Amino acid sequence: MSDQDVADWWATSVSRIEPGIIELRGRPVQDLIGSTGLVATIWLMLRGELPPPGAAALLEAALVASVDHGPQAPSIAIARMTATCGVGLNNAMAGGINALGDVHGGAGQQCLSLLDEIVATPGSTADVVARWQSRSKYLPGFGHRFHPVDPRREPLLTLVDEAVTAGIVEGHHLAAARSIEDLLNTRPGRHIPMNIDGATAVIYGELGFPPPLARGLFVLSRSVGILAHAWEETQQGRRIKGPMPPSILPTYRSPEG
Amino acid sequence: MSDQDVADWWATSVSRIEPGIIELRGRPVQDLIGSTGLVATIWLMLRGELPPPGAAALLEAALVASVDHGPQAPSIAIARMTATCGVGLNNAMAGGINALGDVHGGAGQQCLSLLDEIVATPGSTADVVARWQSRSKYLPGFGHRFHPVDPRREPLLTLVDEAVTAGIVEGHHLAAARSIEDLLNTRPGRHIPMNIDGATAVIYGELGFPPPLARGLFVLSRSVGILAHAWEETQQGRRIKGPMPPSILPTYRSPEG
Amino acid sequence: MSDQDVADWWATSVSRIEPGIIELRGRPVQDLIGSTGLVATIWLMLRGELPPPGAAALLEAALVASVDHGPQAPSIAIARMTATCGVGLNNAMAGGINALGDVHGGAGQQCLSLLDEIVATPGSTADVVARWQSRSKYLPGFGHRFHPVDPRREPLLTLVDEAVTAGIVEGHHLAAARSIEDLLNTRPGRHIPMNIDGATAVIYGELGFPPPLARGLFVLSRSVGILAHAWEETQQGRRIKGPMPPSILPTYRSPEG
Amino acid sequence: MSDQDVADWWATSVSRIEPGIIELRGRPVQDLIGSTGLVATIWLMLRGELPPPGAAALLEAALVASVDHGPQAPSIAIARMTATCGVGLNNAMAGGINALGDVHGGAGQQCLSLLDEIVATPGSTADVVARWQSRSKYLPGFGHRFHPVDPRREPLLTLVDEAVTAGIVEGHHLAAARSIEDLLNTRPGRHIPMNIDGATAVIYGELGFPPPLARGLFVLSRSVGILAHAWEETQQGRRIKGPMPPSILPTYRSPEG
Repeated sequence: MSDQDVADWWATSVSRIEPGIIELRGRPVQDLIGSTGLVATIWLMLRGELPPPGAAALLEAALVASVDHGPQAPSIAIARMTATCGVGLNNAMAGGINALGDVHGGAGQQCLSLLDEIVATPGSTADVVARWQSRSKYLPGFGHRFHPVDPRREPLLTLVDEAVTAGIVEGHHLAAARSIEDLLNTRPGRHIPMNIDGATAVIYGELGFPPPLARGLFVLSRSVGILAHAWEETQQGRRIKGPMPPSILPTYRSPEG
Repeated sequence: MSDQDVADWWATSVSRIEPGIIELRGRPVQDLIGSTGLVATIWLMLRGELPPPGAAALLEAALVASVDHGPQAPSIAIARMTATCGVGLNNAMAGGINALGDVHGGAGQQCLSLLDEIVATPGSTADVVARWQSRSKYLPGFGHRFHPVDPRREPLLTLVDEAVTAGIVEGHHLAAARSIEDLLNTRPGRHIPMNIDGATAVIYGELGFPPPLARGLFVLSRSVGILAHAWEETQQGRRIKGPMPPSILPTYRSPEG
Repeated sequence: MSDQDVADWWATSVSRIEPGIIELRGRPVQDLIGSTGLVATIWLMLRGELPPPGAAALLEAALVASVDHGPQAPSIAIARMTATCGVGLNNAMAGGINALGDVHGGAGQQCLSLLDEIVATPGSTADVVARWQSRSKYLPGFGHRFHPVDPRREPLLTLVDEAVTAGIVEGHHLAAARSIEDLLNTRPGRHIPMNIDGATAVIYGELGFPPPLARGLFVLSRSVGILAHAWEETQQGRRIKGPMPPSILPTYRSPEG
Repeated sequence: MSDQDVADWWATSVSRIEPGIIELRGRPVQDLIGSTGLVATIWLMLRGELPPPGAAALLEAALVASVDHGPQAPSIAIARMTATCGVGLNNAMAGGINALGDVHGGAGQQCLSLLDEIVATPGSTADVVARWQSRSKYLPGFGHRFHPVDPRREPLLTLVDEAVTAGIVEGHHLAAARSIEDLLNTRPGRHIPMNIDGATAVIYGELGFPPPLARGLFVLSRSVGILAHAWEETQQGRRIKGPMPPSILPTYRSPEG
């Protein structure tokens, strides 16, 4: 086996790093510093090219929208607690990010899969929704998880409308999401709105990202809040912080019978 | 104990989240979406206010500069390998971020501590450097770790010079770093330049961030490359990827004697 | 909401911890120290009671068998690399454990699900195997991943045979696994043996553990090797260890066209 | 560079793994399965040889003692919360283990360093304690963190006494710890006992483990409780579990002035 075989084991198109050279997707990093924004760089790293005009602003809005949801979110609480245990800030952040799994960080990813199915087959909303609802009572991207009206929803959807009007995106994912909302709300009962996972899934879908990257982008965004909270916790001086004030002890449930 | 005591256990100034309300450092999130960039939002979340004019652009340059250093960096390799093991992208990212410790992600933080000491006591460069060098042969922020000339150094330092000229920053950390470089290079021997950790430490110091946040900001930046590489690896289809092609087995070293 | 509601949020039957009191599944810890072995304690913590006679020894064999598979295993390599990055041993271990996902640590769990299906419906081997093979070319627990003959297989299966003879376990999972092996090897072609994941799945199934705990127990076992390797790496003195010697650079693949 | 150089990059004395061969510290794994216990295997993997007579039982007692401390411990709460977020059990365990840092899991390691200093220079207790207390108000291994009398302390110290009497260990670390306790309690004020971290540090020191492995062994032990709790949480059916019942919202603290 040659050195080339070993080098190929780690082959990548993302970057080329040699002494004196750093190229990100073929672009010298020194040409990006000071001229290319962070969001455009995120797009470049994930997609291989710089974003088309107007697209970065829409992505930026989705990323700004998701940075935090407070210490009641396990990802935030975990990062805060880890930060009191004598580890580095990076370890506290890793703990929080590790919790952004299928259920905590994955709704946007799953909703994008749902929207992609409808976009792929126009007019299929009722069938697709029925199939998804047969598998789980939770329809990702729709419902009141915490907010009766999520304050992030309308600003984001307005930006998508404007982007459609300006020809920046095509509007298929937005239409698919609205068709689901219409379907859910023709049925009697509680109003079921598109929520933040739905709104960001619309944006990621309109911008052409595949579902797993809806998760990845949500992680980048939420990392900002995770860092801010972990940092604040270190400044508050607690050690070995548990989930409740220490005078409250977890209830012990002896087994039945 | 009242509910208030329990609520206080998780008290925070970072965000206020109630049904229908999301405020980040006192600002309604709907007022930020579409008007405030990601970098300005990062600043707001960490510092409590929006950045002064020109500051966000300098921070953005530092964040763009550090997004990747390829699979030879353990944080990148770890994320890539984890991504082949049947976990979520967030778990792959967490694994890589967990490795950005004192040695891999910490040089910028340590360099900023070094610069802060010199800035605090003007003229102290020789004494401070002597004290740091008595503790470790590695002076954080200076030296050739990989690049004889790091292509990110000059663009970043040029931006700092321009920011000093424009009155956006004061220039004390830049002067401190240059005084260290001058000192190191009056001695005979190999040229020892300020490296990327030094250049970004200068920027974070000029912008008023404390040393641990130099680490936190580096983590946010490197998370972009970590995500891009983890995603690429999942597309390459390997399973349970080890560090070398599988035909090469680690050498077994039987114990001495 | 009362303190009781808050305490109930963290209700558990695993342990009762109050000032001066530590009870594990109802047993005072001071009654376990020095009299109850680690494996019996693991069983107690997971199952709620001490193991029946002979069962702990069988579990112990499975746990000993899986402690290590060398640095070509990503969980081991990741822990070793993380350990060179300036974090605690616990963080290096966490990085390795984080990679024991569905594909790296999950084969035993999946194989146990497979065996459970066959045990639930006697005579169903061919149907169940056909269904599993329609979903994936990998049948968990069977095949040569690395070893033509895995040296752990026969010792483990012999212990199960002996436990069946002694009436410690019933033998249904062993029979199911052997029926799969027979089925796979009546077809022409390469011999497909039950591998280590299959052998340990047999043991965990015979002992009554559900499939997710096959993963959890594998994690406890592999943590031993992960710790040993991370510790050895810290003693070897490397800093920021990447996956290959630093003179080999990852191949850059420019995009097609 | 040859394949040998690449193989050497991952050289290890811990295990030799080749097709058909698994040797742990030179011993074929098939010779360990069924004959060597888990604790003796842990010793073998960490130390390179099987433990001397009586030593494994003392290590086993220390490992059993530390398996759990309930959901008020952040490592346990973090694992439980992560387990509700749609990740694998291994990821939930990794999150908890990641929090066993210098402050949460490190007291045993630090106490062993303290004891080692005293053992190295007989009669030095007062000087060593004075030096440690000048650096931090927390003297690792001593004090009431939670238990006025820790129920694990006496059983563990009794086992050490018996091991000294039997000539299995020498008793120097036990004497050092008792000399610290005597010193602390000649001073007026609240009684300061040796706690669980001190008792396990005595055991690890008597058995010849270096301080970082006091942390590593504590991690192996605590992983048992972490798994049991994460598993129980998955059975309780919550999704995205935060640190408090969801009707209690974290207090928002607006900034001063």
